[in-house]
Amino acid sequence: MIPGYSIRRVEKQDYKGVCEALNALTTVGEVSKAQFDATVDHWNHSLVLPNLLQYHPYVILKDNQVAATGMLLIERKLIHGCGLVGHIEDIAVSPRHQGKQLGRALIDHLTSLGLAHCYKVILDCDESNVKFYEKCGYSKAGVEMQHR
Amino acid sequence: MIPGYSIRRVEKQDYKGVCEALNALTTVGEVSKAQFDATVDHWNHSLVLPNLLQYHPYVILKDNQVAATGMLLIERKLIHGCGLVGHIEDIAVSPRHQGKQLGRALIDHLTSLGLAHCYKVILDCDESNVKFYEKCGYSKAGVEMQHR
Repeated sequence: MIPGYSIRRVEKQDYKGVCEALNALTTVGEVSKAQFDATVDHWNHSLVLPNLLQYHPYVILKDNQVAATGMLLIERKLIHGCGLVGHIEDIAVSPRHQGKQLGRALIDHLTSLGLAHCYKVILDCDESNVKFYEKCGYSKAGVEMQHR
Repeated sequence: MIPGYSIRRVEKQDYKGVCEALNALTTVGEVSKAQFDATVDHWNHSLVLPNLLQYHPYVILKDNQVAATGMLLIERKLIHGCGLVGHIEDIAVSPRHQGKQLGRALIDHLTSLGLAHCYKVILDCDESNVKFYEKCGYSKAGVEMQHR
């Protein structure tokens, strides 16, 4: 990890910091402390295998403040011999901590965690971020389509 | 549904048919009946909300045989007011049943199911399938990146 920063799973005390960091990425909307706690409880108790959690939400901290956050979700499939696939989601770096390679550190951490269990890790990004993810070891695999 | 065909959740009796259909899509590898049953059990018991299953694996049947299969996975996020996102995965039509709009029927079913609960449904596809998904109401949202 980058000097001065540390990384660990999201905890309930991270409520404000995680919501603030995610606001740099997209609309967070109204999320009460009770809703946050219920979501963290869900993430902490959902298993994808008897001894493996399904959700791996992380924060990078500096001076006990949230500087970045990101999620690895593990999916259980039939293909590839009942294989697991990791999905990296909702990578956000707080505006005050941008330009310090925290995104890279977070992606490297979640990718290593995913590849320890999954036959591949995938993520969706804007075309403008393709070069960044290529530096992290990713390659283009397809097109993300959405229906709202 | 297309006349002569029906749709329902995957059941344990679909073992051979689902594996055969998925083989038209990608490598299934060695999946024993016991592994299939354990995976279906997991899909049937994992909750994303107290009253909502996380995995929605479906088959289209004709004469009690699997003609197509596909999955909707629901993810629980913080963004968008603790919103849910649907991921469509592993859409496969058996070679004997191709050209009969089963892919379209399956996507429409899984999309409706997803949008009943989620603020968006997403999927990754090859560039060659973009026009098909646009006909299903999807639009391009980004680039899929993978790390193996």
